[in-house]
Amino acid sequence: MPGDVLLLSNSRPPGGAEPFAHAREVLASHLGDRTVWFLPYAQADHDAYVAWVARALAPLDLRPLHREPDPASTAAHADAVFVGGGNTFRLLHDVRRLGILDALRGNDACRYTGSSAGTNLACPTVKTTNDMPIVDPGGLDALGRVPVQVNPHYLDPDPASTHQGETREERIREFHELNTVPVVGLREGAWLHRTGDALTLGGNTARLFRRGQEPTELAPGTDVSWLISS
Amino acid sequence: MPGDVLLLSNSRPPGGAEPFAHAREVLASHLGDRTVWFLPYAQADHDAYVAWVARALAPLDLRPLHREPDPASTAAHADAVFVGGGNTFRLLHDVRRLGILDALRGNDACRYTGSSAGTNLACPTVKTTNDMPIVDPGGLDALGRVPVQVNPHYLDPDPASTHQGETREERIREFHELNTVPVVGLREGAWLHRTGDALTLGGNTARLFRRGQEPTELAPGTDVSWLISS
Repeated sequence: MPGDVLLLSNSRPPGGAEPFAHAREVLASHLGDRTVWFLPYAQADHDAYVAWVARALAPLDLRPLHREPDPASTAAHADAVFVGGGNTFRLLHDVRRLGILDALRGNDACRYTGSSAGTNLACPTVKTTNDMPIVDPGGLDALGRVPVQVNPHYLDPDPASTHQGETREERIREFHELNTVPVVGLREGAWLHRTGDALTLGGNTARLFRRGQEPTELAPGTDVSWLISS
Repeated sequence: MPGDVLLLSNSRPPGGAEPFAHAREVLASHLGDRTVWFLPYAQADHDAYVAWVARALAPLDLRPLHREPDPASTAAHADAVFVGGGNTFRLLHDVRRLGILDALRGNDACRYTGSSAGTNLACPTVKTTNDMPIVDPGGLDALGRVPVQVNPHYLDPDPASTHQGETREERIREFHELNTVPVVGLREGAWLHRTGDALTLGGNTARLFRRGQEPTELAPGTDVSWLISS
């Protein structure tokens, strides 16, 4: 049985509260007293990022994977990993280069937690990231721990804006011009939690995009297991 | 001598006016009465996009490159090209697949006009695009018609926002954690115009980002030729 998966839209709730203050309960039930290996590769300063997250998540047993002598080997045998946010392209580039991507692909029993870029990494591809492609990741395929795409930090169009760049909804429509996988736009504070065969939305509302269909709204607590049933 | 280069931030001025209404004069002086091959590959619907642009730019002699029997060969001998906006990853993927990328690399004398995604394509790489990576472009290297990166549709941070995604300035800072090339953030309505060895900002203000330095503001009309002098 694949390990459970928790995919958070973001780490910081609005208003500058402690990171993950909005998700304490679901994190506690998802991770329990497991040893959790934290992957800070989406950020430039790994040590600072791990310290920031570990302080917020104490007393969780969070350990910095980048400090291991052989991070890929540790990842291959990890009981639980937590992949933090930052730049998705840097994250994918580095976990590929370090062999961690393949290690995690071979360790499907591992319990997975992702936030922002870490959530993108759990999807079939990173094609629904919002990040700037600051480095060539060597391909866009990711872990596929869930069979749907997530767009983290989902942002509704601002009707007052005069900006002529694409809205998030337009970007996801472009995605569906070339791809068929459904996309869950997770607003700030929302998460998807996969437990066994069940998939549940928590924390906030989300917007579901399916190719050739009008987008629909999902309320917190909605059972969306049908999205992952084959 | 390489052909002149005009890089527009965007096609639509705020307020829903005609496309390129803000840039008529500079487009006329840049293109004159040349035959201009238009590349619509950043959009899904090539024909509709060309029709929309050609109507707005009449009486310019704009011709749809995608309707040519051998677009790469036409591009290789073009006197002027105009690369429109849309999704940068789709654009790069398609011009590479069709051989147009190599054709344009071999035709440096060609006068280049870009808007939005078309502006990204003229830079050394597409690493400062804002677009969603909806398709794997097979590498991020682009045409290098100017030796600086442009970030089109540059957007200032909104101090009232509670959104926790990265601001544009934070994204460009991330770019400079891994890259050294300067980045010109072109606000809506702005353009960079390379004529011979000179580079000038027009249309609106821009924000200049250099690695390890504080960003600076550039006024319309600023001579930034020093950015391209070797």
